[in-house]
Amino acid sequence: MKLASLKSRGRDGELCVVNRSLTKACKATEIAPTMQFALDNWDDVAPNLEKLYQQINQEACKQAFPFDAKKMASPLPRAYQWADGSAYVNHVELVRKARGAEMPENFWHDPLMYQGGSDSFLGPCDPIIASDESFGIDFEAEIAVITDDVPMNIEAKNASSHIRLVMLVNDVSLRHLIPNELAKGFGFFQSKPASSFSPIALTPDELTPYWDGERLHLPLLSTLNNQRFGEPNAGVDMTFSFPELIAHAARTRQLCAGTIIGSGTISNTDRTKGSSCIAEKRMLEMIEYGEARTPFMRFGDTIRIEMLDDNGQNLFGTIEQTVQKLV
Amino acid sequence: MKLASLKSRGRDGELCVVNRSLTKACKATEIAPTMQFALDNWDDVAPNLEKLYQQINQEACKQAFPFDAKKMASPLPRAYQWADGSAYVNHVELVRKARGAEMPENFWHDPLMYQGGSDSFLGPCDPIIASDESFGIDFEAEIAVITDDVPMNIEAKNASSHIRLVMLVNDVSLRHLIPNELAKGFGFFQSKPASSFSPIALTPDELTPYWDGERLHLPLLSTLNNQRFGEPNAGVDMTFSFPELIAHAARTRQLCAGTIIGSGTISNTDRTKGSSCIAEKRMLEMIEYGEARTPFMRFGDTIRIEMLDDNGQNLFGTIEQTVQKLV
Repeated sequence: MKLASLKSRGRDGELCVVNRSLTKACKATEIAPTMQFALDNWDDVAPNLEKLYQQINQEACKQAFPFDAKKMASPLPRAYQWADGSAYVNHVELVRKARGAEMPENFWHDPLMYQGGSDSFLGPCDPIIASDESFGIDFEAEIAVITDDVPMNIEAKNASSHIRLVMLVNDVSLRHLIPNELAKGFGFFQSKPASSFSPIALTPDELTPYWDGERLHLPLLSTLNNQRFGEPNAGVDMTFSFPELIAHAARTRQLCAGTIIGSGTISNTDRTKGSSCIAEKRMLEMIEYGEARTPFMRFGDTIRIEMLDDNGQNLFGTIEQTVQKLV
Repeated sequence: MKLASLKSRGRDGELCVVNRSLTKACKATEIAPTMQFALDNWDDVAPNLEKLYQQINQEACKQAFPFDAKKMASPLPRAYQWADGSAYVNHVELVRKARGAEMPENFWHDPLMYQGGSDSFLGPCDPIIASDESFGIDFEAEIAVITDDVPMNIEAKNASSHIRLVMLVNDVSLRHLIPNELAKGFGFFQSKPASSFSPIALTPDELTPYWDGERLHLPLLSTLNNQRFGEPNAGVDMTFSFPELIAHAARTRQLCAGTIIGSGTISNTDRTKGSSCIAEKRMLEMIEYGEARTPFMRFGDTIRIEMLDDNGQNLFGTIEQTVQKLV
């Protein structure tokens, strides 16, 4: 099924189901007031959400209203955990290569993951607000999954069944703040402002035949200022699967229902597929031309991130955000 | 006032007020069902919580029951944000010195802070569960504040008024997992399992005259296996104040109500005050004896963390946790 959170007075939105073709939505608040509530009580509420989802697909839902991504918050407007992996290791290798550094061999076996801020996500069509253009504002197009409760020390082979929902992410990054911050040794903080997620979160069954329980096998489309920027296939070159990322996150602690685990920037070794962030394109330019030619985002620039199935159907709705100056 | 969260069937506990002498508690669920709800709606609910707090202190609360820290969850059993600073820079310098490294000069001006996991905190008397003793299990005794909504790019001079509550923290750390994890460059993840907080959170006014709006001027007592381990004064040698830590966290993004900001391990340059974590004691031993002599925690070891006022009154209740093997 397809779920979304309608912006409302509350901080957590109102849970909605959205029909398969993304034309209609219907509040599901009588079943579960919020997405977090649904995730906290999934076994109880999912069957009733499924019924409502069938109704809206059969045009049998009287309270349905036109779906409008702009009225949606991120599926979880705030979450208890956002942990972002870096599963496309060829991307990491490229970043290192551009600055003349070797990538340690164990990066192919031991996932990179950082703890992200999750207290106030941007809506899928909300502006990206920054106080200063010189921060080096970049998008990062990714896939993320939302888990139920995951026990500590779970093995990857048992982790796939804990995936409840799949989304797209724009993991906004402030590139020029990263070097100083990482040099301090404690990871990202100021360099990772609020992320945004696709307007719709899908249960894995809804992604048949593109979801194999570990990876999502479709191109992720990034469009910057109406120009195609990248379309790498999320199922290709993903060194660590989602179950492996979940197991990594849960090695020393349980994960609470509603935990969001990200894939990191989607990147294919086939460079004709383009990139899912400006930083990667700049690295490729540095390797090819000796200098980066593509600027980071400026106030007024717009990024669109979406995924279509083989029939051209938009699956998650579109993330579409414009950079704005903090006033 | 003094607030706590009683463990219950739900994931977020039931909000209680606790009397000043920590002998009685009373559910406040009719005013606000959970601590997060109270923080989300502070201006509306705080006056009513204050009334209930006055009643319980006047023994005028019929539903009061004996306060028992063991029945409490952390004040926020799960939170939308836990950001931990490292405000006692002499501690950071010491850690570097023990491994023969210079500390960059800017560490005195630019706070260290990491994004911690906040999805499932331990209760103040819950066991610290680990799958392997060889992880190098350590406690870290700290102070933390909980904020209301903080706007992006706030100045430190305006941040103090956003502090709603003050707590103690045990920021459990797995020391032997840290070097590999930090070497990867993305900060802590597996090396920082679930933290726990004091059973009670206090409004700043309750800490008069020890709270000056920026720092808390009292010794923090750590007791390991019934032996006094440290009693450094939290108001001494705190290079960055809480308002400065909040401003650092909010530089590129707003902070949602219920954000927890930690001080980092309390540490005084006066070494007779002992330490607030085993790692620091080991560093001092290495400098003095050329080898660390105090082992990290083993299964069965117990850590107690608490703060008394000048009259010996326990202010926050006691964190008391025993390390247990994951079964």
